[in-house]
Amino acid sequence: MSQGSNASEKKNCNILTTRIHCIVKLGGAAITQKTELETINESILAITALQLREAMEMRSPFVKMDWSRGNTSAEDVNMQILSLAAVERHLDFPNAFVVVHGAGSFGHFQASRSGVQRGDLNTPLVKAGLVATRISVTKLNHEVVRHFASEGIPAVGISPLSAGWCTKNKNFKEDDMTAVECTVNAGFIPVVHGDGVLDSAEGCSILSGDLIVRQLAKGLKPSFVVFLTNVPGVFDQPPSEPNAVLLKEIGQTELLWWISPCNAVQITVAAHDTTGGMAGKISEAAFIAAMGIDVYIVQAGTPHALEALKGNVKCSESKKRWIGTLVRSAQSKLLA
Amino acid sequence: MSQGSNASEKKNCNILTTRIHCIVKLGGAAITQKTELETINESILAITALQLREAMEMRSPFVKMDWSRGNTSAEDVNMQILSLAAVERHLDFPNAFVVVHGAGSFGHFQASRSGVQRGDLNTPLVKAGLVATRISVTKLNHEVVRHFASEGIPAVGISPLSAGWCTKNKNFKEDDMTAVECTVNAGFIPVVHGDGVLDSAEGCSILSGDLIVRQLAKGLKPSFVVFLTNVPGVFDQPPSEPNAVLLKEIGQTELLWWISPCNAVQITVAAHDTTGGMAGKISEAAFIAAMGIDVYIVQAGTPHALEALKGNVKCSESKKRWIGTLVRSAQSKLLA
Repeated sequence: MSQGSNASEKKNCNILTTRIHCIVKLGGAAITQKTELETINESILAITALQLREAMEMRSPFVKMDWSRGNTSAEDVNMQILSLAAVERHLDFPNAFVVVHGAGSFGHFQASRSGVQRGDLNTPLVKAGLVATRISVTKLNHEVVRHFASEGIPAVGISPLSAGWCTKNKNFKEDDMTAVECTVNAGFIPVVHGDGVLDSAEGCSILSGDLIVRQLAKGLKPSFVVFLTNVPGVFDQPPSEPNAVLLKEIGQTELLWWISPCNAVQITVAAHDTTGGMAGKISEAAFIAAMGIDVYIVQAGTPHALEALKGNVKCSESKKRWIGTLVRSAQSKLLA
Repeated sequence: MSQGSNASEKKNCNILTTRIHCIVKLGGAAITQKTELETINESILAITALQLREAMEMRSPFVKMDWSRGNTSAEDVNMQILSLAAVERHLDFPNAFVVVHGAGSFGHFQASRSGVQRGDLNTPLVKAGLVATRISVTKLNHEVVRHFASEGIPAVGISPLSAGWCTKNKNFKEDDMTAVECTVNAGFIPVVHGDGVLDSAEGCSILSGDLIVRQLAKGLKPSFVVFLTNVPGVFDQPPSEPNAVLLKEIGQTELLWWISPCNAVQITVAAHDTTGGMAGKISEAAFIAAMGIDVYIVQAGTPHALEALKGNVKCSESKKRWIGTLVRSAQSKLLA
């Protein structure tokens, strides 16, 4: 991928010139402590950053890109800058990613307590709740970007409300992906997040990370999509049940069954989860698979997550020991 | 201003339906401790939030809108939510503002040390610097929004790179103001910031808050613009000089003199100030005045700042004791 030059040469940068390897969704429940208000799951986020860097196949030396107070000393930054000045190799990578993350214990509390999903901005509680929700989710976005940049990933935060994305009757059909496309073209990793946004019919709503992934997949046509979650994949019944069986693969026929309302997957969703949990994920995965794009649902922080991010799952060596769920697109061959 | 309803009724919300009272620029040097890396000037930011709320003329009871961990206890939030549920009056206000802030000690260090303004993203230092700069400026934006929300202002952060804004040869001619227009229509106060952005000719650049103010003024046609700075206004020589005289008013003729390169205002700018200081401000003020919009340059945190934000400076009572500089538009009457 030739980076920087694409953006430089083009007058309109909002035409994607870079093939997207993967859109990865970091589940809110995976990267935060979901029962502790605004608390990050540091270890999962740290491992995920390392895995992402590995999957990007960055060829350049490690460069820390978070030079914030507290994170780095002035001396450290000076050392970084000196060493960077000597780096001749571009900070480029062959595998372009777009990252989307959920909210977990950031935002969900504020959104659910105030009823942002109700949408009526004339209600003081809803209006104040939207402000409070955005403060919380943008805080998480900032932390995710910092963690990635600390691991040498050229990450830039992209916030849906800032991007002018809005919903209509809670549906998201935005097709202006300018910020995401331009940053990918220029060799960055955009990090988008679930957000409180305006709704052209109802006032406001919550635009979930899962909905964003679907819309981005439609516009950007990645090679595949990975959902990193806090469970090993999709089970035939709640994973807490003793007989629960992990479904290694879900095809189109099964998907029709899975997403039908009367057979909705029975999963335990924390009471303050505004945006869906596993049922929503499978539904979004079904839509993405219908576009001809394979979707992997896998536990964050595990070696299986890395295999999925690398796109290795279908290799003959990996496929037997891989633990996770492949939601198979119509065009895709069977896993085994 | 009927809030919320505008956004609800319109299919395309990106037509401004609300008259903007004022675009206010919070100078980076005013709201941060410019010599201390990433340190906010808490007292100035707190006073400015109070003054902004007063100038907005909010009629509704005070409602804290930052429900973050650390800022508020769970009990506090519950109390807020209970009290909000009882509030019948909309959280509306007659005077719509758009806020733009500079970077001060957030971002300038990262940008100047890495040479983001050079623009060449193939240079590792520039690319890493853009990531580091954005982490820093978005951190400040988050803090400004939190301070405002804590004072009951329905503030939402809008980030230029997220909005898809980019420069070309460092010039900013963006006319897609969707996010700003939609949030104003819906009754929020957008808080925009100077940012590291992509440049379609050079790779990347720094989009200063001053440039953003000019472009927003052009598109949104506010009644007037206020620059809140760390000095009382524009002086005829550096304010540290014993004979420096504050210029109470600058008209079109003088402006042509002031912005000519050979007569550039001599001001002390900290070495790491990437985006201009007072000289840049006067130049931007000149462009805005040429659009027929008065510009007030005044010290943040003073009673004079409040008078400017309220639009009171031209009232006969205020005009004599007001301390600051009016950059007068062609259409505007003389101050005294």
